[in-house]
Amino acid sequence: MLNFAVGPVMMEDKILRLGAEQIPYFRTAEFSAIMKENEEMMRQCMGAGNGSRVLFLTGSGTAAMEAVVWNVFTSRDHVLVVNGGSFGARFAKLCRIHRIPCTEICLPFGQTLTEADLAPYDGQGYTGFLVNLLETSSGVSYDIDLISRFCHKNGCLLACDAVSSFLADPLFMEKQGIDVVLTGSQKCLALPPGLSVITLNARAVRRVEENEIESMYFDLKDCLKNGERGQTPFTPAVSVLIQLHARLEDITKRGVESEFARTSELAAHFRRGIEGLPLEITSARLSNAVTPLHPLNTSAYSVFLTLKDEYDIYVCPNGGDQADQVFRVGHMGHLTKADNQKLLDAFSDMQRRGLL
Amino acid sequence: MLNFAVGPVMMEDKILRLGAEQIPYFRTAEFSAIMKENEEMMRQCMGAGNGSRVLFLTGSGTAAMEAVVWNVFTSRDHVLVVNGGSFGARFAKLCRIHRIPCTEICLPFGQTLTEADLAPYDGQGYTGFLVNLLETSSGVSYDIDLISRFCHKNGCLLACDAVSSFLADPLFMEKQGIDVVLTGSQKCLALPPGLSVITLNARAVRRVEENEIESMYFDLKDCLKNGERGQTPFTPAVSVLIQLHARLEDITKRGVESEFARTSELAAHFRRGIEGLPLEITSARLSNAVTPLHPLNTSAYSVFLTLKDEYDIYVCPNGGDQADQVFRVGHMGHLTKADNQKLLDAFSDMQRRGLL
Repeated sequence: MLNFAVGPVMMEDKILRLGAEQIPYFRTAEFSAIMKENEEMMRQCMGAGNGSRVLFLTGSGTAAMEAVVWNVFTSRDHVLVVNGGSFGARFAKLCRIHRIPCTEICLPFGQTLTEADLAPYDGQGYTGFLVNLLETSSGVSYDIDLISRFCHKNGCLLACDAVSSFLADPLFMEKQGIDVVLTGSQKCLALPPGLSVITLNARAVRRVEENEIESMYFDLKDCLKNGERGQTPFTPAVSVLIQLHARLEDITKRGVESEFARTSELAAHFRRGIEGLPLEITSARLSNAVTPLHPLNTSAYSVFLTLKDEYDIYVCPNGGDQADQVFRVGHMGHLTKADNQKLLDAFSDMQRRGLL
Repeated sequence: MLNFAVGPVMMEDKILRLGAEQIPYFRTAEFSAIMKENEEMMRQCMGAGNGSRVLFLTGSGTAAMEAVVWNVFTSRDHVLVVNGGSFGARFAKLCRIHRIPCTEICLPFGQTLTEADLAPYDGQGYTGFLVNLLETSSGVSYDIDLISRFCHKNGCLLACDAVSSFLADPLFMEKQGIDVVLTGSQKCLALPPGLSVITLNARAVRRVEENEIESMYFDLKDCLKNGERGQTPFTPAVSVLIQLHARLEDITKRGVESEFARTSELAAHFRRGIEGLPLEITSARLSNAVTPLHPLNTSAYSVFLTLKDEYDIYVCPNGGDQADQVFRVGHMGHLTKADNQKLLDAFSDMQRRGLL
């Protein structure tokens, strides 16, 4: 089996072996030490500054999106949301659910955000900005420096979903003026799904501490407090946190830049490989993490099904309106150029068979 | 390492091996089939009736407690909550957070609920009842038949936390008149933590469907809808769900009664073994799942630490006021009488050393 989906992704042998170990009891000094190191290594990988904190939530990326919207913003904010696909729409819906006033910047599928898109909102009193750095549904990577400049100028608190882009595209919270980043375990961290990670800078920590929310599980104040002793309020995904520790040790040893470089190289290799195939890239601004493709001669969903059923290869289908138009090839996790070549060979074979 | 904590617990080799496998992409017919079978097998293990549904939530047991309180009850309910320890207190706090009118029946630590405790609330118009069947903090197992009779007579919707008691103590939703049961992956299911499971009977399903809650992640209506096609709204803990499938296949093959019998036998063996040791059982009504113990000559927390540091054995410390008074020995998961014996030998050795 080869998995080019955008999560869960292929895991390293070392991580898989940890998945076969008995899980220790976790209200111990030993597990607290692992968690404190996880926090420190995540801060390093995020380029987070002094006073920043990292929270580990047992739940999907959407759980972290909801926790951030709910804990960081209030009804006194006015938040700009970039909505260029289903995850942007989700941020907007979360704002509505939690009564955070918001304005959506709606972008056509596959299009990126430009200076011109932002211009009408400049100087209009916005206090927050929510963006999925990589809109996973369309494979569009937004220009974080453009967004950051806008937020700095307007005094907006900037919260970014980097679920799919963390470790694939360069991200440095402090340097790029980002206040909050959330990510998930099953993307470039290449761990089992079920864990999400929220990094808050000092300003965002203050926001959380001053806010009162009507939930026990999503109360990030409680997570901050428990985190001081390396614990979580409720039983966490202990095994995934132990695997995270092993993964972060490797990443911090090599340096986060080597992760960006590896993913970038893998993506470039794949994109060179599809030249000449009847596949069209549909994103105006690509991330290293994923290549969204429109097959010129057949339904995208049928390509997904054929690869799964006849080649034992997963790519990622799109949902809704785009299901027949676009599928996505991920470059996350433990994949190599040889794996890319197997997928490219499968495409060529399908082409010979009149299936692409 | 031997783990007698009350979660995470020891896992079978077969389950551990699955933890070392690559995780497939999950928006597929194949994974939907696994999920549909998980639902059917859980219904069978719960003794749930026609029209019942099973929901899989990525999160801890507390996430499921919050989802149930929030989705099943409304401000028009008046709910009785049995509060005999920290998990009962948690149910009461969740009611307050979500503005569900509630009355707490507070019990002293270690005491069970009696007919006399319930009498003052009979015929008082209560519409709901929340109870942790096994109050894990004290190791008290409440009399479900007593509670069920009260609820039937009063027309209360009965929602039970069976996080720690599921598969340890007999539980049959339909026969015992239980409307909702929630449980977690890391107790007697003996899987990694991070997944909770909510079973709703037809009446509770209607409640959820008629209710509107202000959360995306905890919206059980969305879970019900996605569950119809064997999916979840957001990326679930795929690997734990695959492990759950293997575990439920074994359990349903043997019959759920054989799980109760196995746990009961293990608990009885341990309880016979501690006779003569300076350890006192502190629960008025025991579950098969756990034995709470008060050491007569030393601090309970020091017993926990010595066992961990010098014998590589985990028992479960109590928190707060009870930390020095009580520790707990679990009988959940992949443990044998030979494992019990190792713990009993360690106790004897500690006694010889003047440490117990």
